[in-house]
Amino acid sequence: MATMEEIAEKAGVSQATVSRVINGYQGVSEKKKKLVMDWARKLDYQLNMTAQSLKNNKSYLIGLIISDISNPYFAEIVHAVEKEATRNGYNIIICNTESNIQREKEAINSLRSRQVEGILLVPANKNAAHLRSLQQKNLPVVVITQFSKLFTSVAVDHVKGSELIIKHLVDLGHTKIGYIGPDKYSGCKEDKFEGFKKGIKNSNLNLDSDYIIKTAGGLPELSSQDVFKKVTSFLKTSDKKIATAYFAYNDLAAFEAIKAFEDFGYEVPLDIAIAGFDNTSLSKINRPSLTTISQPIKTIGHLAFEILLEKISKSESDTESIVLSPSLIIRDSTLMYEKINK
Amino acid sequence: MATMEEIAEKAGVSQATVSRVINGYQGVSEKKKKLVMDWARKLDYQLNMTAQSLKNNKSYLIGLIISDISNPYFAEIVHAVEKEATRNGYNIIICNTESNIQREKEAINSLRSRQVEGILLVPANKNAAHLRSLQQKNLPVVVITQFSKLFTSVAVDHVKGSELIIKHLVDLGHTKIGYIGPDKYSGCKEDKFEGFKKGIKNSNLNLDSDYIIKTAGGLPELSSQDVFKKVTSFLKTSDKKIATAYFAYNDLAAFEAIKAFEDFGYEVPLDIAIAGFDNTSLSKINRPSLTTISQPIKTIGHLAFEILLEKISKSESDTESIVLSPSLIIRDSTLMYEKINK
Repeated sequence: MATMEEIAEKAGVSQATVSRVINGYQGVSEKKKKLVMDWARKLDYQLNMTAQSLKNNKSYLIGLIISDISNPYFAEIVHAVEKEATRNGYNIIICNTESNIQREKEAINSLRSRQVEGILLVPANKNAAHLRSLQQKNLPVVVITQFSKLFTSVAVDHVKGSELIIKHLVDLGHTKIGYIGPDKYSGCKEDKFEGFKKGIKNSNLNLDSDYIIKTAGGLPELSSQDVFKKVTSFLKTSDKKIATAYFAYNDLAAFEAIKAFEDFGYEVPLDIAIAGFDNTSLSKINRPSLTTISQPIKTIGHLAFEILLEKISKSESDTESIVLSPSLIIRDSTLMYEKINK
Repeated sequence: MATMEEIAEKAGVSQATVSRVINGYQGVSEKKKKLVMDWARKLDYQLNMTAQSLKNNKSYLIGLIISDISNPYFAEIVHAVEKEATRNGYNIIICNTESNIQREKEAINSLRSRQVEGILLVPANKNAAHLRSLQQKNLPVVVITQFSKLFTSVAVDHVKGSELIIKHLVDLGHTKIGYIGPDKYSGCKEDKFEGFKKGIKNSNLNLDSDYIIKTAGGLPELSSQDVFKKVTSFLKTSDKKIATAYFAYNDLAAFEAIKAFEDFGYEVPLDIAIAGFDNTSLSKINRPSLTTISQPIKTIGHLAFEILLEKISKSESDTESIVLSPSLIIRDSTLMYEKINK
């Protein structure tokens, strides 16, 4: 690897000039600048970002902490953020917490020791004590896909999204509507469950606890397995009351629920309508294709990064909630009921 | 944030002692070490990895360059590598190239400027000139999920995996077996297409070009869309000859192919058997569940990281190919044919 000395020698300028050009300082003629850069390229001079970041206090690194990269929804977020970061000359260090608070703590410490300029965070538990202490630090943080009282956050309105699903099911003629998912998430009420209840109430239906299949939240990889288990054991009970339509709290849960129902001979959507949440790329591929709520993933990634950059450059610490609107995507998994009843 | 000075004052030791403890040098008593570390924790001393890495020439950073994180298969690789890296005190910087050579070049430059200690790479084109120049540099690289002549690589035997699929289809009684996918990948022959041809030959069947639906490789996000388009336009031709079973070169392609066939009224597997490759988490969830080839993703991530670490610590530059064995996972998308014919 070339040194500044070699570049100076080849270009016939002083080392100080090479240093000025490479570090982007003013006061070097365009001609000399070009000469130096040409030789730097020819000699394969490698800029040392580590040394640069110590000097300039700019690491051009962003941390991205997510709960489960195996979930295609989060993989799409990573995709969007990475694209935006690259466009802005930043690299991202990715940390996967598997919704484990200890791992999240370690990830934050590790990212801070790397002098990241900011963190995009999907919290494991948004009320965790270590997040309150993170808020005290002088490090820009933007929470994504959830809302936060501690940090600026970018997410869709989950309550509203869930209401859209329930309204759609009611419009199709369903009166027995169930929910499959956890009732708590990240140490708080699960917004989708809240939206489900609100939707039922708004439609003047009675909330029937028999139609609610509660599953474990938390560890995402396990939680979809838990959906299959819980729906299966529900279907095994003799005195069960089955709804005609279910809202599963995310796409993966909906797929697992469909699988469980089909294993017991129910046809989706012929016997049971099922809807999900997230509009992951699979919801279109799955058979039946899945009615779901679309989150503008690219917008979330783009906006969150933009806001983080602004916080970094302005050192402002205002906390605001950016609420994005969800959209209803109607596909086959809820469609047939309407056809049959008309 | 605390300074070493403050820690020294609180702990009642010299600054030099604090520095020695924090930088892990020998010659400090266990008692003093504990005292310093306790105060460092209490005062929330933040280790500056950037400064550390300049001093020790160790960044504890690894670059992970992948072609498409939206593909669940790669997301699972990221998951495995991130886990392994964390366990070893490393962080990973992730770069998504979308199989674009220019972006891959930029990613490599960017990672080198960050002083990463090594790179795990899924090449966009394994014969690209810039990779030959990367090989000349003194930077450990391990290629994953593909084989490489330039670098040590960890991948499953794609040819063998494809042969397993063809043998399975032949065992089920199929004699008209097709292939859906590209015939070239990453500037070379597509191994899965080679394995398909080998499998057909080994079963004493004739290779019939009418059964081959060639699709675009390259940009992964587009390539699965291309599968849907190509299969659809094939099914629209009037003089088509349809095979009874198709091997699609990856799971996403298989899902798209199933969709296209079903749109034309074919039932999978009743009319057409379809198999994929990768055993992504979706292959189990999809209806019909997908017969596919399992790649030991966790093993790939684990092994590749281990080998990279070894290269980093020993500075050895031997190039070897680690060939992992694929396994056949039989699911519904190929099953019925057998049932019907018995």
